[in-house]
Amino acid sequence: MEFRINRRDFLKGFAMVQTIVERRTTIPILSNTLIQTDQNNITLTATDLETAIRTHFPATVTLQGQASVSARKLFEILRELPDSEVHFTKKDNNWVTLTCEKSIFNIAGMNPEDFPPLPAFTEEDFHPFPTRQLGEMIEKTVFATSTEESRYNLNGVFFKAIDIDDQPTIRMAATDGHRLSLIDRTGLRFSNLDRGVIIPKKGLLEIKRLIADAAPREGEQEDLVHLSLSENSLVAKKNGIIVLTRLIEGEFPDYESVIPTENDKRIRLSREGFTACLKRISTMASERGEGLVFQIRKGSMAVSSSSQDFGDAKEEIDIDYGGEDLVVSFNGRYLLDAMAVMGTEEVSFELKDSMTACLLQPVGEIGHLCLVMPMKL
Amino acid sequence: MEFRINRRDFLKGFAMVQTIVERRTTIPILSNTLIQTDQNNITLTATDLETAIRTHFPATVTLQGQASVSARKLFEILRELPDSEVHFTKKDNNWVTLTCEKSIFNIAGMNPEDFPPLPAFTEEDFHPFPTRQLGEMIEKTVFATSTEESRYNLNGVFFKAIDIDDQPTIRMAATDGHRLSLIDRTGLRFSNLDRGVIIPKKGLLEIKRLIADAAPREGEQEDLVHLSLSENSLVAKKNGIIVLTRLIEGEFPDYESVIPTENDKRIRLSREGFTACLKRISTMASERGEGLVFQIRKGSMAVSSSSQDFGDAKEEIDIDYGGEDLVVSFNGRYLLDAMAVMGTEEVSFELKDSMTACLLQPVGEIGHLCLVMPMKL
Repeated sequence: MEFRINRRDFLKGFAMVQTIVERRTTIPILSNTLIQTDQNNITLTATDLETAIRTHFPATVTLQGQASVSARKLFEILRELPDSEVHFTKKDNNWVTLTCEKSIFNIAGMNPEDFPPLPAFTEEDFHPFPTRQLGEMIEKTVFATSTEESRYNLNGVFFKAIDIDDQPTIRMAATDGHRLSLIDRTGLRFSNLDRGVIIPKKGLLEIKRLIADAAPREGEQEDLVHLSLSENSLVAKKNGIIVLTRLIEGEFPDYESVIPTENDKRIRLSREGFTACLKRISTMASERGEGLVFQIRKGSMAVSSSSQDFGDAKEEIDIDYGGEDLVVSFNGRYLLDAMAVMGTEEVSFELKDSMTACLLQPVGEIGHLCLVMPMKL
Repeated sequence: MEFRINRRDFLKGFAMVQTIVERRTTIPILSNTLIQTDQNNITLTATDLETAIRTHFPATVTLQGQASVSARKLFEILRELPDSEVHFTKKDNNWVTLTCEKSIFNIAGMNPEDFPPLPAFTEEDFHPFPTRQLGEMIEKTVFATSTEESRYNLNGVFFKAIDIDDQPTIRMAATDGHRLSLIDRTGLRFSNLDRGVIIPKKGLLEIKRLIADAAPREGEQEDLVHLSLSENSLVAKKNGIIVLTRLIEGEFPDYESVIPTENDKRIRLSREGFTACLKRISTMASERGEGLVFQIRKGSMAVSSSSQDFGDAKEEIDIDYGGEDLVVSFNGRYLLDAMAVMGTEEVSFELKDSMTACLLQPVGEIGHLCLVMPMKL
């Protein structure tokens, strides 16, 4: 195996695969990148067995083949090289020689045959999906996933095709058991998605990065990403880069039954003002996860917190509310996370009583809601 | 105690004292800031018993007094408040009430009488020192101090007045036992400095921050910082802000006898080119602190490294050298640290043999040298 490649392209490829490669893996080859020639292209592949990324670049290949070397070490080396041509040769012992101007590196390699293969997929499996909507749906749900390993079926976002008023709709929902975020976007179709699948958080974040990094192709009317869903995995492709993520096996919980339908106490709030208030009052609640207390009465809402170590905080917000008094407590972090992904000027804060989850919805935007469970008073 | 103050000024003051306050201190009051009124000014003081900072701001004081509250918590609160007036009142139990627009905070406080007093100093003790030179001298030495607590006399920079060719000169020197950086600046005077003092790294970095932050006063011809040296401490003052650091007790080692005088093998190098080469070759030596090997012969220097885990690297540099062959090894990190503080285009790399320290000096700049001890080959 032997090729010459522009250092800048090669570095860009290694920068892209870095986030997939686990720093501390018990399987040594997973800290490596697989480098393969394909006519006059070089393909780089990295995987942690759950997520994988594959990207390619033009190169002058003089001997076809494949090699496997440390992803991090190659990245460190390429970062320090001058912007010049890199000459790459594999040796008989799987080591690699890399030369660039007056520098020579002999880099430890492993047998590329041992690199775990990616699941097979073909061009025909891919279907277009609008980039902007996919990015928005990921952003507005992924924060609510659970990070508890034991709750593996909550470690990802539920992705499902539904019909709303006879309109084909794509839904994403995520919950960690304490809060939920759900987004519906109508007019979007996706096959094989009627039962719904759970996509792991890491894979979704890689797909989001793929969408953000990849510039639209020239002449493309709507910016599209191509998705392929099989029984076990979702593959996203844009500008020749492929991100693959295994699906989470297991049932997503019955989130729909948790969404309260009788929250009759509705308060409209300025998103910016409410966010600032939550941040201020959270300063006195951050240490031990104490909740913020909301005292709602005619015309005003008091938000307060108290911390054993540091003291207490309270703030009044004028509200247009004429209903019954209510005292309820929520985790300030969860409310702030929900505020952070809403894009509207105003939000609706809907409550029932101190035992019922609140609903947060962007005013004037259909199809997005966040739910937060109350805390004990 | 009661006053009103502009939130922006108050926040700026608390931002300034944050770096002094230790996150994990066994003495609770050291995590606090002392807040004192002084006519129509508020003074903030923070200390870790080794370094202290004091700053003041105008305020509308209606009741003189003092209070002591968590530096970090106040900073967090002020950061989230709107840009408005803050009303500050101390209560009988040493707690503090802070109000700003519709927010009220009751903040736990401690008895301000328990706050450790700073050493006394008077206006007459201060002498001017050019800011630019002080900043340069700190930057070019402080990186070479030791971080090993047991070598406490190396945990700071030696600061001494000397005469060079009958010219009054200020010298700063720092060493960690493996490398040394020394800078002399002539034409500068400072009293009580003939024996030399050792200033701790943290204090010097605070003084550097003071110099960087403080804008020059209007009409001041040369930008000056005012310094006061007593038996136990150094105080720096600029624009009303005071940084105080205790001196390190103990003898600074006889660094002068370590500086080699017979390094007859002189190589001139492009600072940028040498730095880039060191960074590239260090990629294969970074894991276990292996040294870089320098093979010097007529017309060329080869820099190489090898790592058990990752492989090896080698690069040739053309040099104007006609002397004897030499092979010597150095820690690449130490050479890079020295390169980073040299401001000239070329540097001189002076060697004798594989057992003798090398000297690095900026070509065309007098009074700065770095020394690095060799490693075993």
